[in-house]
Amino acid sequence: MKPDAEATAEGILYTDEYQFTMAQVYFRMGLHETPAQFDHFFRQYPDYGAHQAGYCINAGLEWLLDWMGQARMRVEDLEHLRSQTDRRGQRLFDEAFLRWLQAHGSFDSISLAAIPEGRVVHPNVPLTVVRGPLALAQILETPLLNLLNYQTLIATKASRIHISARGGTVLEFGMRRGQSTGVNAGGRAALIGGADFSSNVGLSHVLGYPPKGTHAHSLVQVFMAMGGSELDAFQAYADTYPDDCLLLVDTISTLESGVPNAIKVFEALRRQGHEPVGIRLDSGDLAYLSIQAAKQLDAAGFDNVSIVLSNNLDELIIWQIITQIQDEAPRYGVEPDRLIQRLVYGVGTGLITSRGQAALDGVYKLVAVCQDDDWVPAIKVSETPEKTLNPGHKGVWRLYDQRGRATTDLLTLQAEDPRQMDPLVLHHPVAPTRFRSLRQAEVSAAEPLLQDVLVEGRLAVDQPSLEAMRALREADLNRLDPGVKRLMNPHIYHVSLSEKLWRQKQALIAAAQRPR
Amino acid sequence: MKPDAEATAEGILYTDEYQFTMAQVYFRMGLHETPAQFDHFFRQYPDYGAHQAGYCINAGLEWLLDWMGQARMRVEDLEHLRSQTDRRGQRLFDEAFLRWLQAHGSFDSISLAAIPEGRVVHPNVPLTVVRGPLALAQILETPLLNLLNYQTLIATKASRIHISARGGTVLEFGMRRGQSTGVNAGGRAALIGGADFSSNVGLSHVLGYPPKGTHAHSLVQVFMAMGGSELDAFQAYADTYPDDCLLLVDTISTLESGVPNAIKVFEALRRQGHEPVGIRLDSGDLAYLSIQAAKQLDAAGFDNVSIVLSNNLDELIIWQIITQIQDEAPRYGVEPDRLIQRLVYGVGTGLITSRGQAALDGVYKLVAVCQDDDWVPAIKVSETPEKTLNPGHKGVWRLYDQRGRATTDLLTLQAEDPRQMDPLVLHHPVAPTRFRSLRQAEVSAAEPLLQDVLVEGRLAVDQPSLEAMRALREADLNRLDPGVKRLMNPHIYHVSLSEKLWRQKQALIAAAQRPR
Repeated sequence: MKPDAEATAEGILYTDEYQFTMAQVYFRMGLHETPAQFDHFFRQYPDYGAHQAGYCINAGLEWLLDWMGQARMRVEDLEHLRSQTDRRGQRLFDEAFLRWLQAHGSFDSISLAAIPEGRVVHPNVPLTVVRGPLALAQILETPLLNLLNYQTLIATKASRIHISARGGTVLEFGMRRGQSTGVNAGGRAALIGGADFSSNVGLSHVLGYPPKGTHAHSLVQVFMAMGGSELDAFQAYADTYPDDCLLLVDTISTLESGVPNAIKVFEALRRQGHEPVGIRLDSGDLAYLSIQAAKQLDAAGFDNVSIVLSNNLDELIIWQIITQIQDEAPRYGVEPDRLIQRLVYGVGTGLITSRGQAALDGVYKLVAVCQDDDWVPAIKVSETPEKTLNPGHKGVWRLYDQRGRATTDLLTLQAEDPRQMDPLVLHHPVAPTRFRSLRQAEVSAAEPLLQDVLVEGRLAVDQPSLEAMRALREADLNRLDPGVKRLMNPHIYHVSLSEKLWRQKQALIAAAQRPR
Repeated sequence: MKPDAEATAEGILYTDEYQFTMAQVYFRMGLHETPAQFDHFFRQYPDYGAHQAGYCINAGLEWLLDWMGQARMRVEDLEHLRSQTDRRGQRLFDEAFLRWLQAHGSFDSISLAAIPEGRVVHPNVPLTVVRGPLALAQILETPLLNLLNYQTLIATKASRIHISARGGTVLEFGMRRGQSTGVNAGGRAALIGGADFSSNVGLSHVLGYPPKGTHAHSLVQVFMAMGGSELDAFQAYADTYPDDCLLLVDTISTLESGVPNAIKVFEALRRQGHEPVGIRLDSGDLAYLSIQAAKQLDAAGFDNVSIVLSNNLDELIIWQIITQIQDEAPRYGVEPDRLIQRLVYGVGTGLITSRGQAALDGVYKLVAVCQDDDWVPAIKVSETPEKTLNPGHKGVWRLYDQRGRATTDLLTLQAEDPRQMDPLVLHHPVAPTRFRSLRQAEVSAAEPLLQDVLVEGRLAVDQPSLEAMRALREADLNRLDPGVKRLMNPHIYHVSLSEKLWRQKQALIAAAQRPR
């Protein structure tokens, strides 16, 4: 895309057409500046088919705020809207509406509360709460979902891969297989959710992390095509990076050529006072090859160099590799735990596309409008009860049990404080007969999850660092029941409604279904 | 992302770290300016699990060329590279290499031949052939794959959905579920591959298509929260867009509220001299509901308005909907073919994420280096024979049979011309015993597929319009065997090697495996 085109395609027109057609209806009806509230939430954890997430890691907010701060209606954008016609060839958007957009077409009037990035989050809990003039909050729907859904999806996948790797370093390698420039958002989310580093050079610099990488098969191919050998290629790499020497050993034959050649080069390095870093395996049976490579490396006195694995990894394949090493390594005289500790995982496609579930179903729903200074809750009834909204402005709380474990996320009416309720009645969001009670004595803490981040377009908090987001993630995961974290068939974490919110929801459903 | 950060993250550092570390090795060895050739190709059609593609639609080239034209090493980029350190804290990239990058860090020296966008393409056939200084052609690997893989993946999916929709209009609705700004590339590819329009406002304007959309549930919710009704919302929409009135009818109850209210509004419109456009169904059993909605609309005299279907569609679900309508509609007195002809499909997640296969396995492999003015073919042998490269600079041809149908894609040595070979011996790329022969009399045409698009950084052809790409797609699909186009278990299209290329490949494999 050319720069001019990109400014249009990533500016305030970066939204769905119906947002503008609806905005004009609101304008005609005099409703466009009516304060409205939309909740952003997801309905289901990612389901990867053979396995399912039991939690998500929230991500994407900072880049949404950046986009909102920059997006505003330019003359060129107005021209584009002016050029749209209806089926009779008449202009679709009239001049009065366009003048209003020209004067007000930005997100300077929007307020936003959100759960911080890096935190563990669950379905039906508002992650982002938007308040502002109806027409502008409506236009924001698409970019908000676009910028948040994907990062949360990938932070979640990265967290699963991180858990599966049991302390092994995880490198994000997915740039070539993601959705064009979207890979930058994916790389960022991976770093928040569980990847230690990324191979993406520009993004890593922007985020303040060193980019990671070694070499490709092409390096060896070049030397071979020029009449040289794999060993020559390794030697050239080691000469250039004597203290960062990590060699890809599978261009010809991993065990017969690659590893023996790497060992020769490592020995020379060591004689010169340098410690080699490791080898990378990119094809074949990674568990078997890593055992055999470790055996060769150990025998040569390189029992501390890393073994980087890549090629189609994801959380299940890493789990399988580790299990296979635990089973097989002893047979070859290799100590499995020591081998597992030296593994590093380069994860590409499986991470950047969230293999098995390529999209998060996050939605953005009108939950209240302000009429005569009074916030009126809005409902959408669905024939699928799970899809019926939790209406109105809500309190969003996380309750911890006496062990300090998160036991439920609780949605309440805004004015309610769960610290004042005893017993706490926790309603299932949908099923009328399912609820449980908690005594205050069973609750060690009740934590409000939403934070005001934008007040009428102005940032209300400093943006935390990525390191701070990672620390939030680790703290939240430590307070999560291990059953909720397991890769397959996780325990279902409870998200509940307070008694009063439940009653309000039922009353609104009944009113909406009353014929009129 | 902030604009400064974006300039870094989407500029010449938009690549994998190992491209720079390898480039420096080449520089140290004096190989950085050695002319090299890399082929870009994919190895396998997308496999969606329950179904598989039998062809792909090539896409992404124009935006790659735009990126290559803009990307060049800036002072800030050099600073980032200068800041990288090895494990001893020494600089990773030395000043001599950075000076060279400062002087030469752009793609002005790269030549590129490619198969045009919109064309049908197959595995192992070079889609893009890159020639240029080794170090720069190496750095190009990641952005090239990033910008081409995804668009080809989505153009292919869009083509399948277009075929499945049997002439029904296809709208790309996936913005909120793709990978952040990558959705613009996805929307473009969808428009090349088979979508008629997109809901993406900015992108549509950039590409010169009118964006499409109607309204969301929130419009109805707003009116209800303000004390009004679904009918009030529909009325307001119709008043604003009397000639573009398309109403979403499932906010309350599709058949008991939505469709009857839409009919009331349509009747009023018609009395005022306007023709209504249609309704949209976004939940429930779309086949059943569209039959019942058609019945109500027909009875009211609106047998020509469109019925837009959305909600989790893809090529299989559309196929199922059409099949179900064919089976069920007659039972309700609705003529199935007439109903099918009025259907429009809004396809979101399933299209923008290529449901079932979220990444194309496109790769970029060194196939030749130039030594003393002589191009030396390069090979990479793999323990998986399918992954062994087809080496060297090659001719890429498509042969048509006497019916004008594409019968094989043929890779030859560059100097060969299949029009001069009789018989044409077509080797299977991997299996030594599998080949077939064609007499020239059986071949109606042999078409070279690659076109020179960039000669040392300069555009050698005018960029075709999207309409021209769509015309190429349609022409190619018309010349493709119907068995290759079917959604499930497609016939495997033949990609072959000429006798001479086959022999060259075998000789190189033998040489690479010879111990030295």
